[in-house]
Amino acid sequence: MYTTPAGGVAGVSGGRLSEVGGGRGRLLDRIVEMLDGAGSVVITTHANADGDGAGSAAALAAFLRARGTEAWIVNPTPFPEPFAFLLPDPRWAVPAASEEAARRCREADLAVVVDTAELPRIGRVKSLIRDLPKVVIDHHPEGKRPIGGVVLRDLEACAAGALVFELIDRAGGPWSPDIARALYIAVLTDTGGFRFTNTNPECLRVAARLVELGAVPEELYRAAYGRFQPHRFELLRESLATLTVHESGRIAWITVPKEAYDRLGATVDDLEGFVDVPRSVAGVEVAILFRTTSDGRIKVSLRSLPPVDVHVIAVELGGGGHMRAAAAVVKGPLEAAVQRVVGRVGEELR
Amino acid sequence: MYTTPAGGVAGVSGGRLSEVGGGRGRLLDRIVEMLDGAGSVVITTHANADGDGAGSAAALAAFLRARGTEAWIVNPTPFPEPFAFLLPDPRWAVPAASEEAARRCREADLAVVVDTAELPRIGRVKSLIRDLPKVVIDHHPEGKRPIGGVVLRDLEACAAGALVFELIDRAGGPWSPDIARALYIAVLTDTGGFRFTNTNPECLRVAARLVELGAVPEELYRAAYGRFQPHRFELLRESLATLTVHESGRIAWITVPKEAYDRLGATVDDLEGFVDVPRSVAGVEVAILFRTTSDGRIKVSLRSLPPVDVHVIAVELGGGGHMRAAAAVVKGPLEAAVQRVVGRVGEELR
Repeated sequence: MYTTPAGGVAGVSGGRLSEVGGGRGRLLDRIVEMLDGAGSVVITTHANADGDGAGSAAALAAFLRARGTEAWIVNPTPFPEPFAFLLPDPRWAVPAASEEAARRCREADLAVVVDTAELPRIGRVKSLIRDLPKVVIDHHPEGKRPIGGVVLRDLEACAAGALVFELIDRAGGPWSPDIARALYIAVLTDTGGFRFTNTNPECLRVAARLVELGAVPEELYRAAYGRFQPHRFELLRESLATLTVHESGRIAWITVPKEAYDRLGATVDDLEGFVDVPRSVAGVEVAILFRTTSDGRIKVSLRSLPPVDVHVIAVELGGGGHMRAAAAVVKGPLEAAVQRVVGRVGEELR
Repeated sequence: MYTTPAGGVAGVSGGRLSEVGGGRGRLLDRIVEMLDGAGSVVITTHANADGDGAGSAAALAAFLRARGTEAWIVNPTPFPEPFAFLLPDPRWAVPAASEEAARRCREADLAVVVDTAELPRIGRVKSLIRDLPKVVIDHHPEGKRPIGGVVLRDLEACAAGALVFELIDRAGGPWSPDIARALYIAVLTDTGGFRFTNTNPECLRVAARLVELGAVPEELYRAAYGRFQPHRFELLRESLATLTVHESGRIAWITVPKEAYDRLGATVDDLEGFVDVPRSVAGVEVAILFRTTSDGRIKVSLRSLPPVDVHVIAVELGGGGHMRAAAAVVKGPLEAAVQRVVGRVGEELR
């Protein structure tokens, strides 16, 4: 039987791969012990899992199973289709609303939460894992309603996947191409293809190791960014017509026309890369993507160049994220939202 | 005075950063000696230098100057404007047709050629450096008319810049952010942003070191790929309307409307990334970009997934390139060229 470790939250910030040892090494060892002590583990991540959440969860599941531990992924929203290829068996991911999910969680000895530390972000999974001891592996600020448990947090890590890499490395594997591939997707997508400000030396070294362990960069790049349906480009075409550069030249944005989005049967996956359009206009420091959600509100995605902090803006708007990549959902109508957000960004640039 | 080393060609293939030593180590040491023995060095690369040629040349010049050696870049075509920021002083690059270039070459003790080993590719610089001892640092096949000299060649290197990194590392520096930045551009652009098949572990480790030495990934990514003017997106928008997927689902192409290209005052730099549109359609194995040149002919850019070889097709059409990325210029009109090229690609896929 699994015994809950005595300790509470044990956060570590700013450590480096090359400096593992000391407090961080002990924390990693403790998490490995918790994993090894569990007969069955439930893994989860935030709603609308991205490549980091999905890749980190898939890698952990493959690692635990290779180590002889039962492992199930129970996410608040379905495992993202573009990353389903990371699951050697699709049944590893169990729909949170299913009877099976309830059973897996009841039978589990431990819950591992990756890529978020905030209760609201794991939605309905919150109640499913309420009574389980928890490990959190994350690279975001803690937030106001932390999940708690034993926490491996490093705000400097490029991705939660880089921390999962560190954990598996500390545990001595076993490694497999499946694990390497899943973690490469995590690191690749959370750095936007090794180009965001979180692309640090550790991140590139982790990627190098993952390639040695069986990740194939071109194949995974295409998997992450190169599997669009033609209608995605029609949506891009219609959205490009909305590209606007602020008179200062420092803010640019595009809007996804809701009519086109609905007509084309688009999904959020089709919007991958749209924010790169305003972002790649020469001189732009803050790029914004606006889209109308199904309930008529406006999803605002913000990207910035150093030193501009868009996280503070997103938080003000009721959202969250990182300093250079953040998002929020605000009230419509669209025109009012654009005016409000662009105005607020303008103040930040002053 | 500089003494020409006795030896001739000393090629090394397939070595790895982690295995430097032995024959490769001695070769590197010998090149360092040649550089140190020279009072003045002329550096050159192939015509229409790309990021690898420009970055490798700029890095070598900065390294040599920091070591107290005079160094000048004399390229067969002007130093590329998008990478001019890599030169701490624009006067380091001397136009090949100038009297100054002739003088610099006369006064030099050594010529270093990067990113090509073929005489025809250095154009008019060939005669300028004819009588100088030469070092060649390259990652391409030797070709039919080799430049000769002392050759550091590694076909597995992701970029010539990765070999320049190895050389400077072997020499013990001195490093500077200028050198790191130039080599990062070399590695970044020759791997298409760490996504082509040449993205190997060594490449990612070199990138990690360069970031530690002062290269800033986001800044350099933006310098290489993210400095578009808004009109580029209008051109993209109008080109997207031409996206066509072959009924087989395996070939896709877009065409750049000449009328829009001219009306918007576009340049070839604006077309960066256009071929990624058909390339990123799910299921596509060969992507093609067609555009009408100023003389009314049709430039055809081909990209393929393994195992499809588009180089053979480009050669048939009178062009060249690599197995997965090749190009040719063919006769118009556009519709006939599209039909002919798509038909030929279809045969290749059979």
